[in-house]
Amino acid sequence: MQQLREAILTQGQGLGTDIVKVDMFLNHRIDTALLFQMGEEFAARFRSDQPTIILTIEASGIAIATATAHAMGDLPVVFAKKGATVVQSENLAQARVYSFTHKKENVIHVEKKYLPAGSRVLIIDDFLADGQACNGMIELCRQLACEVVGIGIVVEKGFMPGGKMLREKGIHLESLSVVKAIHEGTILLEEED
Amino acid sequence: MQQLREAILTQGQGLGTDIVKVDMFLNHRIDTALLFQMGEEFAARFRSDQPTIILTIEASGIAIATATAHAMGDLPVVFAKKGATVVQSENLAQARVYSFTHKKENVIHVEKKYLPAGSRVLIIDDFLADGQACNGMIELCRQLACEVVGIGIVVEKGFMPGGKMLREKGIHLESLSVVKAIHEGTILLEEED
Repeated sequence: MQQLREAILTQGQGLGTDIVKVDMFLNHRIDTALLFQMGEEFAARFRSDQPTIILTIEASGIAIATATAHAMGDLPVVFAKKGATVVQSENLAQARVYSFTHKKENVIHVEKKYLPAGSRVLIIDDFLADGQACNGMIELCRQLACEVVGIGIVVEKGFMPGGKMLREKGIHLESLSVVKAIHEGTILLEEED
Repeated sequence: MQQLREAILTQGQGLGTDIVKVDMFLNHRIDTALLFQMGEEFAARFRSDQPTIILTIEASGIAIATATAHAMGDLPVVFAKKGATVVQSENLAQARVYSFTHKKENVIHVEKKYLPAGSRVLIIDDFLADGQACNGMIELCRQLACEVVGIGIVVEKGFMPGGKMLREKGIHLESLSVVKAIHEGTILLEEED
């Protein structure tokens, strides 16, 4: 997606060999015009999958999930919350997510009633690296008898295994940008299809 | 705002004497159509204040801030992050926020470059109770020489002191709904103006 590529190349920062910092337009400050263009792009790519609900994880997935939901005729959005909760556990679905970045395991959860059985779920998230967050959301959907009809990602780290793993599962995965490598602070993007 | 009142009265839950649970349409599951109606309503109420940027706090403020920004011609959104960070502190503005609900003090922060001096800031948040979160965001704006031109709140707890405190400071505060009391599980709302 051309507008996103330009934003990454002009405003993104590459740190070390694997950190892509897009705080300027996505993760701390939000470029609202670009956000809604990305929402329209996801809507176009996933319309034929006929999702009935959008699932993401707090916090930085919420904005792009909301923009996508709006572009798809105001689908409901559910955001999985981080952290285990001890209360009302019979009403919750939980999954473990290991973060390689932070070297720790998190638990994510949703209240069961917000992802009704039979929902056609489109997962939207800002980043895809190891795919652990996506796997956690897929696990929540499995527990709740929902079908994952697609996964939309703003920035896929193409040098990490998440994208390959999800595609090999046969999931319809769409990444609006794919980072090939980070070299001396420069972010190198895959060419568009 | 009538659509919001109906959502609160039909889908909200009152717990104890002071908890208003709106997880069904705002804080966990998002009713996207209602969200964007609320964004339009904030836009109408604050247009004459001519904000140049919208500020909120992660996580549950992000969706309504984004919808409002979109309705105001795609203003940029900045969300303050929770937690103190020790790195790059010279680039950050930080403020303390005491949560009466969770009985603990949090730190919120923003990167300075995302709230440039002279910005006309519209603060948007989901709840207003004691006003501590708003005070924290006001403090961030003060440190960064930005002007707070208004505060927009989805649900104000009218029986808590935050609203009065902010109005006495002379701030243009708009709450889309005001909860008068919670009585035996029923949420009682103030009448509309």
